[in-house]
Amino acid sequence: MKKIYGIGTGPGDPELLTLKAVRKINEADVIFAPNNKGKNIALDTASEFVKDKKIVFLDFPMGRVTEETYKENARIIESSVGEGEVGAFLTIGDPTYYSTFINMMKYFEKDSIVEIISGIPSFVGAAGRAFAPLAFTGEEFSVVDEIPLENPLADSLAILKTFKLEEKDLDRLEEFGFEYQYIKRASHPDEAILTDKKEILKEKDYISLILARRKK
Amino acid sequence: MKKIYGIGTGPGDPELLTLKAVRKINEADVIFAPNNKGKNIALDTASEFVKDKKIVFLDFPMGRVTEETYKENARIIESSVGEGEVGAFLTIGDPTYYSTFINMMKYFEKDSIVEIISGIPSFVGAAGRAFAPLAFTGEEFSVVDEIPLENPLADSLAILKTFKLEEKDLDRLEEFGFEYQYIKRASHPDEAILTDKKEILKEKDYISLILARRKK
Repeated sequence: MKKIYGIGTGPGDPELLTLKAVRKINEADVIFAPNNKGKNIALDTASEFVKDKKIVFLDFPMGRVTEETYKENARIIESSVGEGEVGAFLTIGDPTYYSTFINMMKYFEKDSIVEIISGIPSFVGAAGRAFAPLAFTGEEFSVVDEIPLENPLADSLAILKTFKLEEKDLDRLEEFGFEYQYIKRASHPDEAILTDKKEILKEKDYISLILARRKK
Repeated sequence: MKKIYGIGTGPGDPELLTLKAVRKINEADVIFAPNNKGKNIALDTASEFVKDKKIVFLDFPMGRVTEETYKENARIIESSVGEGEVGAFLTIGDPTYYSTFINMMKYFEKDSIVEIISGIPSFVGAAGRAFAPLAFTGEEFSVVDEIPLENPLADSLAILKTFKLEEKDLDRLEEFGFEYQYIKRASHPDEAILTDKKEILKEKDYISLILARRKK
């Protein structure tokens, strides 16, 4: 029997780890994290708790990830965790949206015990830092990984993966009637909140995002 | 100078408190929580950390909350926190959506230092427990506090405040082409995951929710 945890490490401030995430990381025999040139933000966030652990980096080459990639990495995880051992895959934010973990899940062996340990989503951390309400009573808020092509029904939007952002995308958001702010690395030491369009378009950071709200 | 923290306590498992939430609760001189007949789920979640604290319950009578209610409770918070002291308002999930805290925020005095401490949203906790992906790459997921009247654009929905749920709402969700599950008190000892429509309609729990996903 092997245990495999998918652990959300939150937006980046190590203090935004949950008590459960810390306990489960402590339990782990092997730590897994997506490889970003030998670095990883989730791993940095949890650095205090993983320093004496065996760490295995997994490759998810950006733009070239296929089902085979997920299958192969699930196999690497299971072959790196011995019988009776615990493996913990770390992911920024939470594992249930836009994460490699939810894509790998179906490839784990049936007799592995898989558990998801929730993390603070990046957009929730950003909303808190910017005092930006995501939803008041009766409102809909939506999370997307690019600015929609059609005017969304939502009153409020969290737009992730903004490193792909172009001027025409922000124009469209304005045409739809949204005000927006760019929250750069919420909860990190170099956090910044930008509202100037030109400034926003200069940024190409992976873990930054836009919070937009429909003007009344 | 007074400090006022709005702290998200997450879905209910005390271990899903963040390290920061625990530290900020420890710092607090006075703890505030919405009054539900002298009880409160956020307070229960944090019970281990608030037991020696002064606790003030605030009234937000369901269905009769007005701007005056928020203003009056903001005033009660500030008059209960002395100069140089810290007050912590606890809220289930996270303070930035459907919470009383985001409605009170604008009524705090300008010289009070207000900070939001993010919590795990109930829908994120529920998705983790149910292994229900909220969003894959390219998808939109939406959070609403009732089942929409029109077919939403989102691929995935988290529907909160399901205590108002009626059969016609679930019918509508099916007509829109969604599969759904009801997650009762995710992360609590009495957690349950229901998929049977009749069973779901028997439940009137405040902190339970529906996760729905568009059938492919």
